[in-house]
Amino acid sequence: DQPLLLIAGPCALESEELARRVAGEMQEICGRLGISYVFKASFDKANRTSLDSYRGPGLDEGLSILSRIREEMQVPVISDVHDVGQIAPAAEVLDILQIPAFLCRQTDLLVAAAQTGKPVNLKKGQFVSPWDMENGVNKLRGAGGTKIMLVERGACFGYNNLVVDMRSLPVMRGFNCPVIFDATHSVQLPGGAGGSSGGMREFITPLSRAAVAAGIDGLFMEVHPDPDKALCDGPNSIRLDAIEELLTQLLRIHKAVTT
Amino acid sequence: DQPLLLIAGPCALESEELARRVAGEMQEICGRLGISYVFKASFDKANRTSLDSYRGPGLDEGLSILSRIREEMQVPVISDVHDVGQIAPAAEVLDILQIPAFLCRQTDLLVAAAQTGKPVNLKKGQFVSPWDMENGVNKLRGAGGTKIMLVERGACFGYNNLVVDMRSLPVMRGFNCPVIFDATHSVQLPGGAGGSSGGMREFITPLSRAAVAAGIDGLFMEVHPDPDKALCDGPNSIRLDAIEELLTQLLRIHKAVTT
Amino acid sequence: DQPLLLIAGPCALESEELARRVAGEMQEICGRLGISYVFKASFDKANRTSLDSYRGPGLDEGLSILSRIREEMQVPVISDVHDVGQIAPAAEVLDILQIPAFLCRQTDLLVAAAQTGKPVNLKKGQFVSPWDMENGVNKLRGAGGTKIMLVERGACFGYNNLVVDMRSLPVMRGFNCPVIFDATHSVQLPGGAGGSSGGMREFITPLSRAAVAAGIDGLFMEVHPDPDKALCDGPNSIRLDAIEELLTQLLRIHKAVTT
Amino acid sequence: DQPLLLIAGPCALESEELARRVAGEMQEICGRLGISYVFKASFDKANRTSLDSYRGPGLDEGLSILSRIREEMQVPVISDVHDVGQIAPAAEVLDILQIPAFLCRQTDLLVAAAQTGKPVNLKKGQFVSPWDMENGVNKLRGAGGTKIMLVERGACFGYNNLVVDMRSLPVMRGFNCPVIFDATHSVQLPGGAGGSSGGMREFITPLSRAAVAAGIDGLFMEVHPDPDKALCDGPNSIRLDAIEELLTQLLRIHKAVTT
Repeated sequence: DQPLLLIAGPCALESEELARRVAGEMQEICGRLGISYVFKASFDKANRTSLDSYRGPGLDEGLSILSRIREEMQVPVISDVHDVGQIAPAAEVLDILQIPAFLCRQTDLLVAAAQTGKPVNLKKGQFVSPWDMENGVNKLRGAGGTKIMLVERGACFGYNNLVVDMRSLPVMRGFNCPVIFDATHSVQLPGGAGGSSGGMREFITPLSRAAVAAGIDGLFMEVHPDPDKALCDGPNSIRLDAIEELLTQLLRIHKAVTT
Repeated sequence: DQPLLLIAGPCALESEELARRVAGEMQEICGRLGISYVFKASFDKANRTSLDSYRGPGLDEGLSILSRIREEMQVPVISDVHDVGQIAPAAEVLDILQIPAFLCRQTDLLVAAAQTGKPVNLKKGQFVSPWDMENGVNKLRGAGGTKIMLVERGACFGYNNLVVDMRSLPVMRGFNCPVIFDATHSVQLPGGAGGSSGGMREFITPLSRAAVAAGIDGLFMEVHPDPDKALCDGPNSIRLDAIEELLTQLLRIHKAVTT
Repeated sequence: DQPLLLIAGPCALESEELARRVAGEMQEICGRLGISYVFKASFDKANRTSLDSYRGPGLDEGLSILSRIREEMQVPVISDVHDVGQIAPAAEVLDILQIPAFLCRQTDLLVAAAQTGKPVNLKKGQFVSPWDMENGVNKLRGAGGTKIMLVERGACFGYNNLVVDMRSLPVMRGFNCPVIFDATHSVQLPGGAGGSSGGMREFITPLSRAAVAAGIDGLFMEVHPDPDKALCDGPNSIRLDAIEELLTQLLRIHKAVTT
Repeated sequence: DQPLLLIAGPCALESEELARRVAGEMQEICGRLGISYVFKASFDKANRTSLDSYRGPGLDEGLSILSRIREEMQVPVISDVHDVGQIAPAAEVLDILQIPAFLCRQTDLLVAAAQTGKPVNLKKGQFVSPWDMENGVNKLRGAGGTKIMLVERGACFGYNNLVVDMRSLPVMRGFNCPVIFDATHSVQLPGGAGGSSGGMREFITPLSRAAVAAGIDGLFMEVHPDPDKALCDGPNSIRLDAIEELLTQLLRIHKAVTT
């Protein structure tokens, strides 16, 4: 069996120092536990709730930081792309291109990402059924994409709330793509804090456990040394010093369902 | 740690022979696996989709069958009650009284059930949030109930579909009640087959695995030797000969999260 | 064309004096406006959120009050029934028997109501699609019911919220039953106030206007001289002194769509 | 009072001939009825379900057609923009820039649109509550936008279904923006036809009537001479020869609620 994959990092690239610290600690923990680790941070948060929200360092500076982490620390990196123009520079640096959930139906973005030959991590839109993600997979494959991963990150459930429908995991694995569970965005309360999004951090653990048991290929987590001070998505981030215990528990469950 | 509880049986009391066969096989399997077993079957299906649907043998005949299973086979029994008048005779026979999900807010029914002193298994309505089930628990406790179990069986998700919000499991455990996951009603498609309800049997396994990993005290499953011939809820029942393998897997997960 | 029907009154029978006052004022207003009026109040609120909530005077006293209003004021009366035992006494007094939304699938209750020969007002469950209400209509018709009305009162939309899907109105009219829009329960926030249900009174007017324009046969409204002091459902009740203006506006819309 | 606004046209620019025919007939009908008419068609359908779906003539050719309709027929034109690069050329031709629902949170797109000084028509995402659209309005206003319109086009309701929550109309009018009801996208069944989206054309009329009665400033409709042959969104388009009767009815309702 494949080892679990973990995509993790701070939501946004707040500083190179923070990024290196998280990447380094995660690399060490995952090495110890036998988990494949990919560092994730956004160079630009393109759809924050408010104009005043922190967005990140931008494409050029962000890719430079990610490139140095990749080269100097030997950690694979992933980040999200928001328009066709970002794809070429991003593909020069990133190991995996990620399509944000809101953009999962934007044909040109998917085609351009697939055409780079890089693996593409396609997040399921909050407004899309798991069955319908096959249309997204077909767009990527139709454009030559061969390495496609799909991400569950919750579905719209009334207003300002998401629900994780665990049926989505086996459904999307049925498209012959590795399926990743995004444990931290899944506990967001979109717009639930007025001018920003809230989150219910206490559900990261039970939902992660449930997803691993249902059957997945990897996890996605936002990790921060001090979530209450994170410039983005703090309410739904995991403390860096809590992650090893959680991963250890998840590996026990993974072993229980794969052996 | 407590052993897992399993409430299982055919949806309706189709015949005493079938009931004894299922109870006997389940008792043996659960004994072997170290699971606490309670036999469940309904004497009356009071809310079938259509007048022509099979309803069961009725209160008197149904309780007689359940009583013989209990006495002669030494298997504890549970069944659901639908109005206050059924409570007294049911409490003479049953080990646990079950409140159906649609009736979870009917105050008199809850009060009368609690007043028997018997354990009460309160199913969460498809229209109720897990947080709001505390109101039901308070009604039962206010009427003297001390042994209260809560059941997750899916929440309304658009029309003709249910979603299991795994957050409900830790939320309801927070009320200091054992929490049961109803693995088979959770995969129903209510009204999804026109004049009856459909079901997606293929999701029983991943959802059960997920719920055990999230953390529960027991499971509820409709079991039938030949689900396609069941007189009720066939589309969402488990084959009797498939249950031991599923339980074995669930126990491995339960062990992984409780040790 | 038929005149609009209005079922209205205080949520619960708080006192005979209050009931008479509301019935009298509504009768006068509806007479003036050419609306068929039916007085509604519950003798027992059987599914309040908490044990401590006000429930009403009970079956006997409640039916006595309703009977006097009917006889002495010449106002037809409707009330809801919650179990089979209430049907016979209720049918002796009431002009219309109402089945509560949570109980809309309880076969015995529907059959017993239909067998009285009285008109039955069946509320659509918050967990039922409009298409599936045909099953309820078929149960009533199969038991001999001929005068059946259906009520839209909102559908589950995530937790603690309801949404009125206006598609339900033409769908249910397609079953050849008059369709009533329950303008006040539709703006409830179930469980939204912790130990009780909240409500968004400001949406009664736009939703009523929308429903009349979509096409309905009648309206249902909870009316109270002082909603903030109502013992039940105050947050979603209309002030008695505001109702004539609303009805006048609704009649203008009704005329615009029926001529 | 303001006259009603109507944004209408074929979903995609199938041909200049079709566009001119629809624009001409709509202009004539709206002139007769006293409705302000804006022609809408997309030059590119950027988020079709499948790679093989028809997308339109593209930016350059599409803007040329729209420009000729605007100049030669004296009809104002609107179309949707999908990335920042399209904004400048689109703003040279279009009277109103439209932000698609899936992209309603993409900050750069909103900012660039607002900075043109053109009116912006912002569609509410299927995944956004009406209250949260104030964040989008604030982004546009923060970038200098002054003429902002908001569009209701349905909210996610389970999978493959949308529900129109009529509460959204007064909520969004509360942000001091004209509110448009998109009567045809609101009846889509996203992904409901497997490799494409289905639709329930029979609900266009009752939902439009409801929205006008609830209170709106304008309507958006996809119109086609022969919807069954439309290259895009046929299942939820209105026949061109049915539109005058519908608009006449809607005007009667509009008059009933505004006088």
